[in-house]
Amino acid sequence: MSRLAVTEKIIAQKVEKGLQWKDIAEKVGASKEWVTAACLGQMTLTEAQATTVAQIFDLSDSERKWLMQVPYKGSLPTEIPTDPLIYRLYELVNVYGTTIKELIHEEFGDGIMSAIDFDMDIQREHHQDGDRVKITMNGKFLPYKEY
Amino acid sequence: MSRLAVTEKIIAQKVEKGLQWKDIAEKVGASKEWVTAACLGQMTLTEAQATTVAQIFDLSDSERKWLMQVPYKGSLPTEIPTDPLIYRLYELVNVYGTTIKELIHEEFGDGIMSAIDFDMDIQREHHQDGDRVKITMNGKFLPYKEY
Amino acid sequence: MSRLAVTEKIIAQKVEKGLQWKDIAEKVGASKEWVTAACLGQMTLTEAQATTVAQIFDLSDSERKWLMQVPYKGSLPTEIPTDPLIYRLYELVNVYGTTIKELIHEEFGDGIMSAIDFDMDIQREHHQDGDRVKITMNGKFLPYKEY
Amino acid sequence: MSRLAVTEKIIAQKVEKGLQWKDIAEKVGASKEWVTAACLGQMTLTEAQATTVAQIFDLSDSERKWLMQVPYKGSLPTEIPTDPLIYRLYELVNVYGTTIKELIHEEFGDGIMSAIDFDMDIQREHHQDGDRVKITMNGKFLPYKEY
Amino acid sequence: MSRLAVTEKIIAQKVEKGLQWKDIAEKVGASKEWVTAACLGQMTLTEAQATTVAQIFDLSDSERKWLMQVPYKGSLPTEIPTDPLIYRLYELVNVYGTTIKELIHEEFGDGIMSAIDFDMDIQREHHQDGDRVKITMNGKFLPYKEY
Amino acid sequence: MSRLAVTEKIIAQKVEKGLQWKDIAEKVGASKEWVTAACLGQMTLTEAQATTVAQIFDLSDSERKWLMQVPYKGSLPTEIPTDPLIYRLYELVNVYGTTIKELIHEEFGDGIMSAIDFDMDIQREHHQDGDRVKITMNGKFLPYKEY
Amino acid sequence: MSRLAVTEKIIAQKVEKGLQWKDIAEKVGASKEWVTAACLGQMTLTEAQATTVAQIFDLSDSERKWLMQVPYKGSLPTEIPTDPLIYRLYELVNVYGTTIKELIHEEFGDGIMSAIDFDMDIQREHHQDGDRVKITMNGKFLPYKEY
Amino acid sequence: MSRLAVTEKIIAQKVEKGLQWKDIAEKVGASKEWVTAACLGQMTLTEAQATTVAQIFDLSDSERKWLMQVPYKGSLPTEIPTDPLIYRLYELVNVYGTTIKELIHEEFGDGIMSAIDFDMDIQREHHQDGDRVKITMNGKFLPYKEY
Amino acid sequence: MSRLAVTEKIIAQKVEKGLQWKDIAEKVGASKEWVTAACLGQMTLTEAQATTVAQIFDLSDSERKWLMQVPYKGSLPTEIPTDPLIYRLYELVNVYGTTIKELIHEEFGDGIMSAIDFDMDIQREHHQDGDRVKITMNGKFLPYKEY
Amino acid sequence: MSRLAVTEKIIAQKVEKGLQWKDIAEKVGASKEWVTAACLGQMTLTEAQATTVAQIFDLSDSERKWLMQVPYKGSLPTEIPTDPLIYRLYELVNVYGTTIKELIHEEFGDGIMSAIDFDMDIQREHHQDGDRVKITMNGKFLPYKEY
Repeated sequence: MSRLAVTEKIIAQKVEKGLQWKDIAEKVGASKEWVTAACLGQMTLTEAQATTVAQIFDLSDSERKWLMQVPYKGSLPTEIPTDPLIYRLYELVNVYGTTIKELIHEEFGDGIMSAIDFDMDIQREHHQDGDRVKITMNGKFLPYKEY
Repeated sequence: MSRLAVTEKIIAQKVEKGLQWKDIAEKVGASKEWVTAACLGQMTLTEAQATTVAQIFDLSDSERKWLMQVPYKGSLPTEIPTDPLIYRLYELVNVYGTTIKELIHEEFGDGIMSAIDFDMDIQREHHQDGDRVKITMNGKFLPYKEY
Repeated sequence: MSRLAVTEKIIAQKVEKGLQWKDIAEKVGASKEWVTAACLGQMTLTEAQATTVAQIFDLSDSERKWLMQVPYKGSLPTEIPTDPLIYRLYELVNVYGTTIKELIHEEFGDGIMSAIDFDMDIQREHHQDGDRVKITMNGKFLPYKEY
Repeated sequence: MSRLAVTEKIIAQKVEKGLQWKDIAEKVGASKEWVTAACLGQMTLTEAQATTVAQIFDLSDSERKWLMQVPYKGSLPTEIPTDPLIYRLYELVNVYGTTIKELIHEEFGDGIMSAIDFDMDIQREHHQDGDRVKITMNGKFLPYKEY
Repeated sequence: MSRLAVTEKIIAQKVEKGLQWKDIAEKVGASKEWVTAACLGQMTLTEAQATTVAQIFDLSDSERKWLMQVPYKGSLPTEIPTDPLIYRLYELVNVYGTTIKELIHEEFGDGIMSAIDFDMDIQREHHQDGDRVKITMNGKFLPYKEY
Repeated sequence: MSRLAVTEKIIAQKVEKGLQWKDIAEKVGASKEWVTAACLGQMTLTEAQATTVAQIFDLSDSERKWLMQVPYKGSLPTEIPTDPLIYRLYELVNVYGTTIKELIHEEFGDGIMSAIDFDMDIQREHHQDGDRVKITMNGKFLPYKEY
Repeated sequence: MSRLAVTEKIIAQKVEKGLQWKDIAEKVGASKEWVTAACLGQMTLTEAQATTVAQIFDLSDSERKWLMQVPYKGSLPTEIPTDPLIYRLYELVNVYGTTIKELIHEEFGDGIMSAIDFDMDIQREHHQDGDRVKITMNGKFLPYKEY
Repeated sequence: MSRLAVTEKIIAQKVEKGLQWKDIAEKVGASKEWVTAACLGQMTLTEAQATTVAQIFDLSDSERKWLMQVPYKGSLPTEIPTDPLIYRLYELVNVYGTTIKELIHEEFGDGIMSAIDFDMDIQREHHQDGDRVKITMNGKFLPYKEY
Repeated sequence: MSRLAVTEKIIAQKVEKGLQWKDIAEKVGASKEWVTAACLGQMTLTEAQATTVAQIFDLSDSERKWLMQVPYKGSLPTEIPTDPLIYRLYELVNVYGTTIKELIHEEFGDGIMSAIDFDMDIQREHHQDGDRVKITMNGKFLPYKEY
Repeated sequence: MSRLAVTEKIIAQKVEKGLQWKDIAEKVGASKEWVTAACLGQMTLTEAQATTVAQIFDLSDSERKWLMQVPYKGSLPTEIPTDPLIYRLYELVNVYGTTIKELIHEEFGDGIMSAIDFDMDIQREHHQDGDRVKITMNGKFLPYKEY
């Protein structure tokens, strides 16, 4: 058994039971973005969270313990994603990568936006020409340290 | 001569003259995100915009014409970026890619967030534990069409 | 169980039962191009369509539910296809890619042909020197947005 | 000097002179698809065609001779295109590749659609929800030979 | 079950029974080159041929049906073959590729040697300094079409 | 200066002067296959051959000396060739690689066909349905040695 | 001109003048590790530091300005380093990567060691069996944030 | 059975039993860094160590024997690690690789830091702004030998 | 069943029984280098050798037959080896590759050292500063043939 | 200027002057293997050696200084060599890699053969069936250290 096996069981159970991530997140008591990432094997749950998730997806005690392990992260099967939705995100990094770099450095100087002290929010934005997806990424700026 | 050569000249001139993207954007009359991307060779300028940009960076008439050509897009030298700031964006796609996919599909059904009918906003968010970078991505949802 | 497992079962059942995609498409009530793509794990079926497909291929109820999930798309095992028929399509992208880009931009300006708001038609064209394959791709033009 | 250098000169001259591919094609006397591909270094011109193209782009006699050489074909700088317009074509191969394979084999048996005895047509299709790009690919079916 | 599984069974049965490809080819009634390729999952058999092959290798009826399906072609596990015999063929393409291209174009003009309307013959050639392998490849020349 | 630079000069001179490989080969006094490979930087010439080649292509004395150096072999810019003619050869290795391996081993036992003690012949074969390209590869069989 | 060109000039000047990094660092007034990284194009200098570095290496005013630009980071020409000294570091990541991950998570929980709020020290350690290299890496622990 | 299977069993047992690497290391009688690497399949254990490890993780006698075999080393599933913690180490090699190379050569001359005659120590360093990870790598300098 | 499965069984049996390659080689009656390579799936055994090997490792009759099949050669899981011992050999090819090429060509002219008509010997060499590994590779020189 | 430029000049001068590596090595006073590697940019020369080499190849004083710098090692343009002579060495690593690993571990235990404390000898071995190349590699065994 491994964390990957637990992730696959969670996904299969979600299809079988017809669950929604936002309902699962509400039961776990955290944002839908973080809870989905955790259930997909990218975050570490506390014992209380793991117990809730185990009940939702009928996990065994061994499977529940895996949820509390720090996972080997990375959710995509190829270096460049083949799935069109995920590829669009990669395309944005490719097309806008140097732009984002220039503008963050112009505002903050040398450093990075943390991908760890980070949160994300995904919302539907109603629009007359067709609704829009709004993804807000928010990470602490970490300046390079001179020594 | 090529669009890439024009981009390299723009960057060199910007260093030489000590310019700021936000000031350049104001003169061009569009957002700093779009103008920076355009100057870095990812977007196509109108004649009026190209003339403004050519004046700012002392471009020749031939160089100015290249700014109005649709460029071959893609701003990074390697498939997986080596620069730490840009890699953090790739890491987010890698760690959160399946999460974003699940949540957009849960809300909208099968389809993608457009990377074309798209805008982006980068802001500094003041915070007592250290300021934060806030990137908002906003793209039209495009549903897969059955036929 | 996963969507991939359902796709493999569908393919095995099709061989076993000796079915034709055009007959399956007729029963499902959509084009042969879309239905084949859906059965091969690239599109999402409605409940009614999934029920029809499940009957055709003797799928279990769990398998039927997977057909209504948005799949992780991408149907090829390698970045550059090894199969000669599919490679010819990749070769066309490689040889004609910049040509198609130039001509679409000349006609429409900067933007893309959507691969989402898109349909495709494959026909046999009779010809005295040997019949021909005619593939018509039709996608909405999406202009890049300035902001 | 090489064919690549001639292609780069043609592109630079086209920007400088503000020419259109469809006008160039008319002067050459062939389709805009074929002429663009030829000017971009993918096809071989006859002496008469090369003379016309040389006049349009102010090519030297040596450069004109290169247009009549069979080129080393392949127009893209990376295996997976980074340009969004060209990537969408690659995405279609990735998502629909197995579908196209199944349907051509169902209709014709084992074999391929030729990418050599092939022509292509790109048209604008007016549509009330936004105009569409229509690409028609037409290639001879070549059956695998048993021996 | 899949075509790959049938190929693996055929190979295992051939080892177990100690068969020779030339004898199998004779029973099938086609060349040893084509029959071996077909048994290794690269060609499509007719019903009669499939029945013969199924008898030779003790295949089940389902396995026999897979032999009549057009396979996803490509017989090597890596892009560059590791096996020394097969690598030598790849080395020949690498060392002589541009030479073959030049000489075919000098003789025929722009176009390709078909790999579909193609046959191959492998013979032992006796020689006093050690016997030689003689591979003859014979494919129709397909000229690029102007349109 | 390097061997590559000499190869590029030879190719440019051939285009400029409108020469044919078969005529060049005749003057050098070896087969057109070997001479073309040598001029394209894959083989080593003797002093006499180099002098002839230098005269044909107006090479300097330094350039002539490079022709007598053993080159770093390999004539293709990418691992998988993008040029359609050369790709067809790679495709043959991919589709028929295991077949060729099986049949050579069946006839000769374990070993390889030499790509060094090797010659190649390329001929046009007239045929009523369209002329054919016939490539004959002939290499010494080298058995694996037990020790 | 670009930052890369400045880095190359610095390296060439260092060879020409026979300078030592530790002496350069002393003049700049920071650690030898940070100053070397900055001179090799990985860190951003202040105006005072850039002026010192420009004097040491005879840089022009334009070159000096590049030192104050945030560079595109990444100092190696290939994904897997070919240089034996640098490969040994990559090997350590490869062999000990999961070990380091396990032990940091055991001590700190889920999170990372910062490569930004980070310093490094390289020392010679005298030892009777041969001196040793001692590299100390010291980075802030950044815990993953739940939200 | 293989060493990899034993490693996977050890990891699963550790999760199941809720063990800590530092306690396991203490029982084995070596550093936590070396013991963790050994349990993760990167080092070779003595018979006494293997017996202790086998008792801790309930290994069979065959599994115990595998621990005494020299393993095929390398603990990461991809060339460039996707896991954020491990990627940071790779990033350090990428950003600081040439710096470390320069400084070791300046101090020691041409040679490498051994990754074999090597030890490593990972410690928590308390700090008021957040605790820090301190990794000390210590390897013998091996000079290149002239001959 | 496949040759790979037999190789894996041989390795597992060797661990289980605690055998040594040199003892196995002695029983088979060939060098330890060749016998080890053969048992690891890289060489073809005669019937007598296969029978001996089958007895040593308790192989079934089907498994024994696989030892007499010519294997698909190549023993490493990645293009660039991750194992430190094997990587050192790859590093030698990388660092010394052009040197070996120059020296062999200086001595022999254009051609290669055969990897087929080849033998290898691995010995311990006692030395007061620590014992040394001595690998002697011996292959027939094969000159390129002019034709 | 860079070490690579010096290497290219050395190679060009060697062709121009018609020198032999063994004669150069004799003047430098070290083995032909080490001197060739040093001249090809893989080793570091002392001042005396650099002066000799500079005289032989007419190097400038700046070029001479580069010979005393520790180079960024790695002499091949691709990960897998395309040159047939060098590929054969890579093939030996690929086919015999696990064999060499097994036999060194059987004799020495866990550790590696050093590629740093290493020397190499290349000799012609006369043989009636054709002369042979004999490469002897000799490196110190470095045992993995427990800590």
